Amino acid sequence: MRVNAGPAIVRGFRFSGVSAGLKTVAGAKDLGLIVADAPATATAVFSANRVKAAPVHVTMDRIRSGRLQAVVANSGCANSFTGKPGLKLARDSCALTANEIGCDAQLIAPSSTGVIGHLFDLQKFGAGVREAARDLRPDGMEDFARAVMTTDTHPKMFSTSIRIAGADVTIAGVAKGSGMISPKMAKMLTYLVTDAAVSAPHLRGALRAALPHSFNAITVDGDMSTNDTVILMASGAAGNRALSRKDLDVLNAGVEAVSAALARELVYDGEGATKLVTVEVKGAKSPADAERCARQIANSPLVKTAFFGCDPNVGRILMAAGSSGAMVESDRLVLAIAGVRVAARGALIVDALPSAAEKMRGREFTVNLDLKLGSASATILTCDLSYDYVKINAEYTT
Amino acid sequence: MRVNAGPAIVRGFRFSGVSAGLKTVAGAKDLGLIVADAPATATAVFSANRVKAAPVHVTMDRIRSGRLQAVVANSGCANSFTGKPGLKLARDSCALTANEIGCDAQLIAPSSTGVIGHLFDLQKFGAGVREAARDLRPDGMEDFARAVMTTDTHPKMFSTSIRIAGADVTIAGVAKGSGMISPKMAKMLTYLVTDAAVSAPHLRGALRAALPHSFNAITVDGDMSTNDTVILMASGAAGNRALSRKDLDVLNAGVEAVSAALARELVYDGEGATKLVTVEVKGAKSPADAERCARQIANSPLVKTAFFGCDPNVGRILMAAGSSGAMVESDRLVLAIAGVRVAARGALIVDALPSAAEKMRGREFTVNLDLKLGSASATILTCDLSYDYVKINAEYTT
Repeated sequence: MRVNAGPAIVRGFRFSGVSAGLKTVAGAKDLGLIVADAPATATAVFSANRVKAAPVHVTMDRIRSGRLQAVVANSGCANSFTGKPGLKLARDSCALTANEIGCDAQLIAPSSTGVIGHLFDLQKFGAGVREAARDLRPDGMEDFARAVMTTDTHPKMFSTSIRIAGADVTIAGVAKGSGMISPKMAKMLTYLVTDAAVSAPHLRGALRAALPHSFNAITVDGDMSTNDTVILMASGAAGNRALSRKDLDVLNAGVEAVSAALARELVYDGEGATKLVTVEVKGAKSPADAERCARQIANSPLVKTAFFGCDPNVGRILMAAGSSGAMVESDRLVLAIAGVRVAARGALIVDALPSAAEKMRGREFTVNLDLKLGSASATILTCDLSYDYVKINAEYTT
Repeated sequence: MRVNAGPAIVRGFRFSGVSAGLKTVAGAKDLGLIVADAPATATAVFSANRVKAAPVHVTMDRIRSGRLQAVVANSGCANSFTGKPGLKLARDSCALTANEIGCDAQLIAPSSTGVIGHLFDLQKFGAGVREAARDLRPDGMEDFARAVMTTDTHPKMFSTSIRIAGADVTIAGVAKGSGMISPKMAKMLTYLVTDAAVSAPHLRGALRAALPHSFNAITVDGDMSTNDTVILMASGAAGNRALSRKDLDVLNAGVEAVSAALARELVYDGEGATKLVTVEVKGAKSPADAERCARQIANSPLVKTAFFGCDPNVGRILMAAGSSGAMVESDRLVLAIAGVRVAARGALIVDALPSAAEKMRGREFTVNLDLKLGSASATILTCDLSYDYVKINAEYTT
């Protein structure tokens, strides 16, 4: 499915992004709105972290209705580890927003990213949301995308067009990712919108189906934030008929394609990342083994520093595989790095290493590990671990 | 229990370390011997990695008898991922050693550390082991310690003296650690010797009891090598009587004290480490929760880079705790960094952060997290993640 980078227009939605003074950088956009013309069907998934930020708790509660009319998102402050005052702030900020855009506050999902342990200034927020409400435009997606950025190096937007049930439908998404913010607490926020008419259960199905091949298949450093949220809203403005099973398949594929493009971009723009590496494990004894093994390789600091150094380090990859808990037999497996076979039949292919090292100089490559023990497979996208990762994460002081 | 740094004399054992040309650095010691005057009781524990090096397989097999007379260890080549030729090489090198020192080859444990995927030169090894056999001395422990070093910045030896069953007994240990070697495959090798007369089952009990508070309570980067080995041998030369339950307690405490000192030193000399951090989790709902939580904090790259930056980053520590799978309630927990309470009752203690940051400038500090949910606790030693970690691990190319 063809996916386009950049902002899109999605009927039934307007967007804006303004500077409310919540970020320390003067003039930086830090407050964004997505508003549907009428209540939209909606679904969401959240961080599995036991410590969840206040806006996550509020959104979890509101999404149960299967409907949302707006998202109000801010950067500069994560409103996390803020206890009851944080919950009150999240609800109060929605009430202010409801007042400005004229909708039920219960249909507004709050979303925050930035420093933890602090509350944002509700007065600044109020002035900002008034301006954001005035600025709402069908073509305002990029402003919204900029308002949720932290140290992302660029705004992240993708869209696709599909035809279902007699209508042309657009699915678009905005994400902010692994750019570092002060005490990093909001690694990933994603907002997907479509003009398709879709029931809440079908929307939920589409988002759940997309996760394993998008947001759940990426890692930057193996850590899991307290604010991670993916929201999917459908306005119905495309006016399609009820969706057949086949239409749903197309819809699901569209949601997955946009999600996968955004997820990939999050890794590509990962903190200090200089390389995007796809870790593919196949031939595993079970799906759990494949996943464990791929994740262990993708998260190993030793493997990731070797990627950074363009070092086809078979030892570290096998060490990670062997310590993952997955069944691994070193005499059977076949390992290729950047398309070059570097280990097979229990031995290193020494002559192949210079060629693999050369190919690792590219911006992207794949690690293929075939365990030859079964038929399960798993793929995880990761990035390398560079000096800049340490710089970005060590040099900020709270 | 008082533990002394540096080499010790342990009756019934001789040591040596020579340069056999197995390392690329000319003249560097790379072949070491520990030889008991007669077969000693012995026990060992090994890497849980599914991919194990050839010498580990051979030693695992031989230690079943509960007896060893010698250890022959080399650096420069890990003899890992070398298939059947690697197993043959490990056995052949023991046969050569047996010939030089005059003992049964089945009583010799081989041990290797260095690059993986390669075999070492048996002829160079043979010449080296001949020299090493000639050099064996009761006071040769430091030579042995140097022969197993890779990029450890200094040799690591500790000892203690105890009195049990009518005899003065010495327990001493040598370790090589988290110094980086080419493709890092042999993070941790430890050799413990005592002149106590101890049965193999009691030795096994002592080593197993020591692990949770020593080698299993440390992490440098969460990765697990294929060569990790801890061997404990007892010569019986102290001539003590049979050990009572109370004597065994003293012996166990001695083995644990020496192991803990070595383990701590491994982290202190971790790759690129500038800080030694003790992560203490208490008040957990279960021992498994306490352990999970402490390990997640100790292994988080975000937490470790914050340590490097002297940043009392409450958010990252709570993020790691919350993503560990352990029960965590952010409104209950109390967190102290470097002795300064920085979070309690669901809120950051903002005023305390500058003082915590100041105290983090020291070479060592503690992170105390009280979850206030139960009575289980766990302690893990870790180090920070610095530019030098990336440098050491990225700049080598196979």
